[in-house]
Amino acid sequence: MDIKRFFEPESIAVIGASRDPNKVGSAVLKNLIITFRGKIFPINPFVDELQGLKAYKSVLSVKEKIDIAVIAIPAEMVLGILKECEKAKIPLAVILSAGFNEIGGEGTKREEEIKKFLSKAKIRIIGPNCLGIINTDPNFNATFLDPNSKVIKGHAGFISQSGALLSAVVDDASTNNIGFSKIISIGNATDISEADIIESFKTDEKTKVLALYLEGLNNGKDFLKAGQSFSQEKPLLVLKGGKFKSTSGAVSSHTGSMAGDYKAYELAFNRIGAISVENIDDLFNFMRDAPNIKVNSDEVIIATNAGGAGVVTTDHISSSGLKLAKFNDKLLNELAKALPKEANIHNPVDMVGDATPERYRDTLEILVQMNKPIIILFSPQEMSQPLETAKQIYETHLRHPSVPFLSVFLGGARVEKARRFLLERSMPIYEYPNEAVFMIKGLFTYYSHRAQTFKLIAKEKAKYRDLKIKTDIFGIDAKKVFDSIGIKSADGIKFTSYKELEKSAEKIGYPCVLKIESNFLAHKNKVGAVIVGIKDRKALEDAFMKLSKIAKEQKINKASFGLYEDVSKFGEDKMEILVGAHRDPQFGPMIAIGLGGIFANELNETTFLLSPISDQDIDELKASKIGRIISEFSSESVFNELTGYLFKLDKLMTANNNIKDIDLNPIILFKDKLFATDFKIFV
Amino acid sequence: MDIKRFFEPESIAVIGASRDPNKVGSAVLKNLIITFRGKIFPINPFVDELQGLKAYKSVLSVKEKIDIAVIAIPAEMVLGILKECEKAKIPLAVILSAGFNEIGGEGTKREEEIKKFLSKAKIRIIGPNCLGIINTDPNFNATFLDPNSKVIKGHAGFISQSGALLSAVVDDASTNNIGFSKIISIGNATDISEADIIESFKTDEKTKVLALYLEGLNNGKDFLKAGQSFSQEKPLLVLKGGKFKSTSGAVSSHTGSMAGDYKAYELAFNRIGAISVENIDDLFNFMRDAPNIKVNSDEVIIATNAGGAGVVTTDHISSSGLKLAKFNDKLLNELAKALPKEANIHNPVDMVGDATPERYRDTLEILVQMNKPIIILFSPQEMSQPLETAKQIYETHLRHPSVPFLSVFLGGARVEKARRFLLERSMPIYEYPNEAVFMIKGLFTYYSHRAQTFKLIAKEKAKYRDLKIKTDIFGIDAKKVFDSIGIKSADGIKFTSYKELEKSAEKIGYPCVLKIESNFLAHKNKVGAVIVGIKDRKALEDAFMKLSKIAKEQKINKASFGLYEDVSKFGEDKMEILVGAHRDPQFGPMIAIGLGGIFANELNETTFLLSPISDQDIDELKASKIGRIISEFSSESVFNELTGYLFKLDKLMTANNNIKDIDLNPIILFKDKLFATDFKIFV
Repeated sequence: MDIKRFFEPESIAVIGASRDPNKVGSAVLKNLIITFRGKIFPINPFVDELQGLKAYKSVLSVKEKIDIAVIAIPAEMVLGILKECEKAKIPLAVILSAGFNEIGGEGTKREEEIKKFLSKAKIRIIGPNCLGIINTDPNFNATFLDPNSKVIKGHAGFISQSGALLSAVVDDASTNNIGFSKIISIGNATDISEADIIESFKTDEKTKVLALYLEGLNNGKDFLKAGQSFSQEKPLLVLKGGKFKSTSGAVSSHTGSMAGDYKAYELAFNRIGAISVENIDDLFNFMRDAPNIKVNSDEVIIATNAGGAGVVTTDHISSSGLKLAKFNDKLLNELAKALPKEANIHNPVDMVGDATPERYRDTLEILVQMNKPIIILFSPQEMSQPLETAKQIYETHLRHPSVPFLSVFLGGARVEKARRFLLERSMPIYEYPNEAVFMIKGLFTYYSHRAQTFKLIAKEKAKYRDLKIKTDIFGIDAKKVFDSIGIKSADGIKFTSYKELEKSAEKIGYPCVLKIESNFLAHKNKVGAVIVGIKDRKALEDAFMKLSKIAKEQKINKASFGLYEDVSKFGEDKMEILVGAHRDPQFGPMIAIGLGGIFANELNETTFLLSPISDQDIDELKASKIGRIISEFSSESVFNELTGYLFKLDKLMTANNNIKDIDLNPIILFKDKLFATDFKIFV
Repeated sequence: MDIKRFFEPESIAVIGASRDPNKVGSAVLKNLIITFRGKIFPINPFVDELQGLKAYKSVLSVKEKIDIAVIAIPAEMVLGILKECEKAKIPLAVILSAGFNEIGGEGTKREEEIKKFLSKAKIRIIGPNCLGIINTDPNFNATFLDPNSKVIKGHAGFISQSGALLSAVVDDASTNNIGFSKIISIGNATDISEADIIESFKTDEKTKVLALYLEGLNNGKDFLKAGQSFSQEKPLLVLKGGKFKSTSGAVSSHTGSMAGDYKAYELAFNRIGAISVENIDDLFNFMRDAPNIKVNSDEVIIATNAGGAGVVTTDHISSSGLKLAKFNDKLLNELAKALPKEANIHNPVDMVGDATPERYRDTLEILVQMNKPIIILFSPQEMSQPLETAKQIYETHLRHPSVPFLSVFLGGARVEKARRFLLERSMPIYEYPNEAVFMIKGLFTYYSHRAQTFKLIAKEKAKYRDLKIKTDIFGIDAKKVFDSIGIKSADGIKFTSYKELEKSAEKIGYPCVLKIESNFLAHKNKVGAVIVGIKDRKALEDAFMKLSKIAKEQKINKASFGLYEDVSKFGEDKMEILVGAHRDPQFGPMIAIGLGGIFANELNETTFLLSPISDQDIDELKASKIGRIISEFSSESVFNELTGYLFKLDKLMTANNNIKDIDLNPIILFKDKLFATDFKIFV
């Protein structure tokens, strides 16, 4: 749905406009009077005039076309008014009123009723429980932001799930001279969602970068689709609030407990190539500068008049995973000619303390040949000419507009004019080197993601759909599922009584492993319900007695037992790997691979992949720590077999929406073979 | 040495004062004329007057006492002038001239000559290659900073190894209203060192916090001593430049290659309880606020008028390792009474958007009972009164001065006055929540470190001193050293010829392991020079033939062989641990423990401990990931035995200054025993 058309209204009605200046409706009306050139209809049944405008009893008594209704009345009256708006053929209502889903109980009921009405109505809504919407071209401010807060016209779209944060951002942005195209406080997003807005911002020519403050989502899949499509065109920034919310309720699977709440969001942001920022000031820098810089290299050049600043910047570059560009001999010769003897001609280039504006220019004219991002550091020293230096930087950039110039002018009052000079010419300029480095890192990630083409190869197959798993299953029962989709596992038999023991042992052979197989024993090892290395008949009987006793202690009626071959007979050198899956409520299946056994608990070395997995995910996995460890330990065919399992689990999860979690922990790797040895499926 | 006395001069001579206003000497003279109330003697043999002051031919022609000589003349003339200064009984020279060690060659020679002269002279020097020194009370500025840069009087001491960075910091600080007690540009620190200055700042009543920009050190041990003593009194901040310098030359030991360059600095900063900052703006915040806040808890309270801001702040708290404080029922009841129904009375406390200054006051009056740090968030909303809120925060704090209040006023112009109000009253106030969280984290680390008492138990013993290791040793030769200090290892015999093979095998038994023992084979596994799991005589002979061939291929004359018992006979479940040591040129021995085998290369799970190791280091190790993995896998006695080895290596390194690196990789752990199986000592 394209909601851009809502943003060029010719008339706006304010329902709940009031004489009390402290009421939300008054602030909206005031903001509209200041900013909007179209017609404004205050709606209030009790007065004839408001802030100099004729007031109407209801939207139905307005005889002209109304494009937007802003609703600022008590929650319990909203539905009735919404019905009137539909009758008046108003296409969009912005509901500022609070008292809906966010307060639970009555509020949730009210929101459900509105949803029900909307499903059949033609009117669309933004909100409820929001601050309103703003466009800067054409201009209108339909929010209850403080009328003193000036919204500057610019190229950044901004969507916020927090009204209060939005008001702080707007105030801060105007002080920092950051401009917006459109601002939307989305509130409870009952109807028009984040995805709808992202989609329409994609074709909005006035928006060149979109920033999002997000705490949660109603529909992750829509968000993925809209986000992926958006970021093929323009940079998308996300500040995610609530990263560390404790997961609700107990998590039974190992994979699920490792995934946590934020992991899926992180994978989703990666998948769509969104730039994830942690701090509000990083958000500002990106909103301001992202449209002006295209970064196609992770190799950075530094040019400085202060050695120490170069050193600090180099540290930031290294710790962010970027690299210093290396110069070839030709370039070094040119630099040596242009710079005094004391200078350092290698990267970071030190033009030394007495560097003149002309020396900056000459050095940059040489460095632009590399066509890589240049961080230009300036520290105000005895001989320095900040403003003249800024002018030379600007003019050099005009001659080489495709080379990213990111200037950092350290200092305070002495460099203020220089900073402003660059700022006013849309040149990226920062106070501290870490800001420039963070910007390059974020934009490099964004542009390299955009250059990728995704080959998604996971497809659902009938085989996976027919499995029909309806309850949690463990042990041999689960093993059968994995057998059927081609995951290799240790031989095993399930039995329930002593008399089946001998028959089972004959089939499995020695050494073997005996386990209690029960839903109640998710953590079998902790209660001693797994006995390994059983060498003969006698030991097997002892093991059976021991486990029967434990089953009784744990109050398991009719315990089943699983007898497995002990795969350690295949060799001494083995490694335990965890493979699993977890279904995120928003973004769907995530497939996990990491170190198994005791390492799984203590080391944070588990990689998650968002479904559908691509070949490229596997390439990245191969280059990661866990990939390198597996490749060093096992043959390539084992690595390929193992990563094949990730695709299988992806298909299994995709074809069976009721499966919540899968644990295959551990899968035991040898040099040239592998076996899954423990099996759990949670629905 | 106490160098404070140098900072209250009654007279200063400027040697190299010049008529050319672009010369360093002119700038120093100008700065002194503006700031210094004592006598100033410009020294210049060619003129009679400079900037309105009588000029002298040399310091010897000044007939009065001179307390400081500032030297700003070409490098090659410095030594001669220094001699004149000594003759004139000047106690301190500040040498601004560059052209010494920092340029190598001739410069290094010049610096050596000065050092030689100083070793017998009474005069002390700061520099060379520095920007000068500043005191704000009594006032004097003996630097060549731009005379327009104002240095504000305050409580922060600042030592910088980079003059250019210093000039940026001073300019930025004056713009941000940050005051200094004393500023020292230390240059090459040929005589007076960082440690000397830190030591004297300790008893300087005007300095309440000390910030250090550091790229390297001449004497790490002195720095440790001075730093540890200083930070028992006042916060010490360090911004370390050059964290990621590539290590010079090849590193032969595994432990050494993992240690890198910065690791030792990190351990040193930890040891002395210094607050390590990454960015210049964090440095400013700490310089300004550290003396005003004492943080004794890692449990933080948040009070906000904006839910979203509370969410973002909670994320910063979680990711920094701090916690949210939990409220008891009494407090919750009080909050419920004081706040409106829509408020959230749990931490983070949401006072909601229409929070008045009085609501802030009432809420804080309840929260102070917890006596924990409070982050007070303010987002400018429709009804907000920023300045009045700031006043209430300030007044509440006056009533409870011991509770840390850290205010974050989000936004721009609307909150500027409120920010300034708090700033002028020395109340910690920030623009963004991450700044407040970083401050609490840093100060909590500092104060908890200060509260610790260190019991250092590693002592040198004759046994360790008598080992006299003079060359690199490997294999059985090295094993003997470790045997002699009580490190348990696999049985082993060294031999050189086929005829010794059988005798050795009899002693060791089967299964066994055969290795080539040679200095030339630091990475034995890579060339196949280790054969494990040799089961019988026949296999041993084959192994010997194979290794003899490899020795020939690798061109090892007179190869020795090591025959070891194969410890895998002691059990299937085993884990490989790396233990090692590395001598840092600055800070001495660092002892390492981590996962061994293939994990050592790929996972960054190696913990380093700075010598001398304390019991507390071991307690922390036990609680770390690697400690928990070992404890989960092996018995307590194995853990204790293993950590005992760390103390042994510490003593070995301490008693034998020539040992550079030690690798015991791997030590093989079983449930109830352990064996070192590979041995290397590098000198």
